[in-house]
Amino acid sequence: MAETWATSGSGEPAETGVDLHLDLTGPRLREGLTDALRDAVRSKRLAPGTRLPSSRTLAADLGVARNTVANAYAELIAEGWLTAQQGSGTRVARRVEPRRAAPAALRPRLAGQRPTYSLLTGSPNLAQFPRKQWLAAARRALTAAPHEAFALGEAHGRIELRTALADYLARSRGVYADPERIVVSAGFHHALGLMAQALKARRVRTVAVESYGLDIYREQLSNAGLRIPPLYVDDHGARTGDLAGMPDVGAVLITPAHQFPTGHALPPARRAAVLDWARATGGLILEDDYDGEFRYDREPVGALQGLDPDRIAYFGTVSKSLAPGLRLAWMVLPDWLVPEIITAKGYLDWLSSATEQLTLAEFIASGDYDRHVRAMRLRYRRRRDELVAALSERAPAIKVTGLAAGLQVVLELPAGTERSVIEAAAARGLEISGITEFRYETADAGWRLPVKDALVINYAAPLDNAWAGALDILCDVLA
Amino acid sequence: MAETWATSGSGEPAETGVDLHLDLTGPRLREGLTDALRDAVRSKRLAPGTRLPSSRTLAADLGVARNTVANAYAELIAEGWLTAQQGSGTRVARRVEPRRAAPAALRPRLAGQRPTYSLLTGSPNLAQFPRKQWLAAARRALTAAPHEAFALGEAHGRIELRTALADYLARSRGVYADPERIVVSAGFHHALGLMAQALKARRVRTVAVESYGLDIYREQLSNAGLRIPPLYVDDHGARTGDLAGMPDVGAVLITPAHQFPTGHALPPARRAAVLDWARATGGLILEDDYDGEFRYDREPVGALQGLDPDRIAYFGTVSKSLAPGLRLAWMVLPDWLVPEIITAKGYLDWLSSATEQLTLAEFIASGDYDRHVRAMRLRYRRRRDELVAALSERAPAIKVTGLAAGLQVVLELPAGTERSVIEAAAARGLEISGITEFRYETADAGWRLPVKDALVINYAAPLDNAWAGALDILCDVLA
Repeated sequence: MAETWATSGSGEPAETGVDLHLDLTGPRLREGLTDALRDAVRSKRLAPGTRLPSSRTLAADLGVARNTVANAYAELIAEGWLTAQQGSGTRVARRVEPRRAAPAALRPRLAGQRPTYSLLTGSPNLAQFPRKQWLAAARRALTAAPHEAFALGEAHGRIELRTALADYLARSRGVYADPERIVVSAGFHHALGLMAQALKARRVRTVAVESYGLDIYREQLSNAGLRIPPLYVDDHGARTGDLAGMPDVGAVLITPAHQFPTGHALPPARRAAVLDWARATGGLILEDDYDGEFRYDREPVGALQGLDPDRIAYFGTVSKSLAPGLRLAWMVLPDWLVPEIITAKGYLDWLSSATEQLTLAEFIASGDYDRHVRAMRLRYRRRRDELVAALSERAPAIKVTGLAAGLQVVLELPAGTERSVIEAAAARGLEISGITEFRYETADAGWRLPVKDALVINYAAPLDNAWAGALDILCDVLA
Repeated sequence: MAETWATSGSGEPAETGVDLHLDLTGPRLREGLTDALRDAVRSKRLAPGTRLPSSRTLAADLGVARNTVANAYAELIAEGWLTAQQGSGTRVARRVEPRRAAPAALRPRLAGQRPTYSLLTGSPNLAQFPRKQWLAAARRALTAAPHEAFALGEAHGRIELRTALADYLARSRGVYADPERIVVSAGFHHALGLMAQALKARRVRTVAVESYGLDIYREQLSNAGLRIPPLYVDDHGARTGDLAGMPDVGAVLITPAHQFPTGHALPPARRAAVLDWARATGGLILEDDYDGEFRYDREPVGALQGLDPDRIAYFGTVSKSLAPGLRLAWMVLPDWLVPEIITAKGYLDWLSSATEQLTLAEFIASGDYDRHVRAMRLRYRRRRDELVAALSERAPAIKVTGLAAGLQVVLELPAGTERSVIEAAAARGLEISGITEFRYETADAGWRLPVKDALVINYAAPLDNAWAGALDILCDVLA
């Protein structure tokens, strides 16, 4: 970096004598001069109204070509930092607001704000994200992609991804999937938002939701202006037979493969009941298959959707199978619903990265996705077994349910102890969720959920180095 | 693939004699059997109500372990394909809707539906997407990323990207950028949607827009319930001085670096005027810097935002500099506006892929972004010069404006000829836009834009093998 003192004044009226201490940096001199002048104005070393030396003078002082200075002045005049009037020369604009320079960088927000351990629901094990295979898939996909792959693409999502998903979902989840029925979205939340718009457009006013579930999705539906009466969830999952008695329900959001968070697979009779309801009323079933791949004691229960693809909208995502950060999810829709969802998507809106979609398509088509899911199934099963073993040894009174599948289990607690257990864990630096935060009931439902104290424990997410510690604290507070 | 005829009947009541022609495929036998049974039901070879052979019988017929059959039955019962009642054995569920199997794949929608050539606006040259460098950046970024990078992340966008952008924008666009002021979005359209929500939340009802621009953004603002009076655009850009005379305008959307599509840089006096308006009224300036990097005859005009970062929301994107398919854009906001935009984003909503954000952060930090922009600047400049040379030789009557920057130029036409020229080009297989489609005026504006016939020609987008042909047709229809 060359530093230069430019003292103009010689040959200029007195009031204009101005010392410019300019740091000439950067590869190209003109840019260096422009930046230096901009900084001098920003930092108020050059006050608003100050007259600058003529380009000839400054050029001479700096030992640069006059054109260099003239161009720098011209640029700053064009940008509004400087002004030039006939006769009064070049001055610092009076409008510039001086301000500190922006900080070079920032420490990440998340740092250090977290408790030491967390068993909160929602995340898979991020340490297991298959970086190598994902990058290899990206390389194959982007190398082979046609140029138009980098364009906006189509609202449905890349055809490569929809084709790969159609095959995978038919094979692994028993989904009746046709690329034309698939719409890619930036996560389940996004897909549900599109569905809410589409339902409202076809005058659906009421969507039944399970009496245990995530409040953010309930909020999303009610913020969209939909009524959301609760569907009673007991120890066998959602009581779908009740739908027949619920007036003007136009759609129902359920988690048949693995009720969230209670963890039960919807029994055959209740699967039949919800199909009967859909056929009798023309209602739409919203099947949230958020973690259907993860079942440990037998083959995963196939999706409900295959039984009646024209009455069921199937929702899937990579948020549990790979990583939520990818923001990739999909809907498999009845034919008639596809155009309505696309309309809800709107022009340019909501699209997921084309390169990311191509990478996932390749990742699935190559078999890496199946291999990853199988590997995670083993790993999560081991975690689950360690959890069960530790509890049976150190807290044998605790009943564990929802073991068969997914990333979490439910630990039943003595009545009235949920809150104190959560607080005890927090005091030890362990974040855990109580089942009460997932509970949903309304006065007009005509029933009340039995009081249930329990924890919902995500045993999948903790990093290996944190798992033992988290488990130890959990056992302590439950002992 | 092993084929087996399973003829049950022996030892079973007559009505249950059923031939199962099962194709046992797939690596794992049980899955093969489950799929084969599911297909038999789907394809109606097994009609609803049909009683299936006992697991013992079928196992014997197929020469597999009884458990294999029992497990397959159990799985299909759990999924609802089969039913089991005490005494009546296992039957095909009456609810199953038989349907054709889903097609294996689909030809891409886009194929063959396009005219041969296009000079439509909106896209950079996709053949130039730096695949190698992008993949290399992805490798470095994903290899180095912390595990939490694969989590949902924060609504603002990854800190790595916001830090890289802050440095780049300050350096290359004169933006006063601080990572804390930056919010990442999935494209400009998405960012503008968030801004519309935030403006409405603070009771802004009116946003002035340029009288030439893209209708989709005007629609987006008015669909959000905002009034959008036009701001007159003449041959020097937007007449920002008029804002003082426009009642209750709370914000103005402008393209100061390069008016779209007319192609002018906003002159210093008009830059000053819009700042004066903002300061006098407390109004917000929405600066759309969609292609500010591309200026050919001198240094790019710096962003307006640097002059008053607390009254200007700056919008940038990679859609012109890299590829629209990446769906990555950003806002640099006044401090006070950041929380309001984050509120508009809502929980989980709108997030861009974390891996894509990390890749762009690395791509920028490594200097690849600067190199790519410089290389494209040269390439586009050459294209522009070829266009101008060809026109001056073959259609010398045509006046070319908006040459200094961006990816397109305006070709002025004799009055009343715009439509016929576009149709003549279309007849030759060349898509082009007339300036009329970008025109916006309202009755209550108190003025009418002078009638202007012109073409807006994107010379950047055509692939090399299509450029000469497109240019040739263009010259023909203009000659």
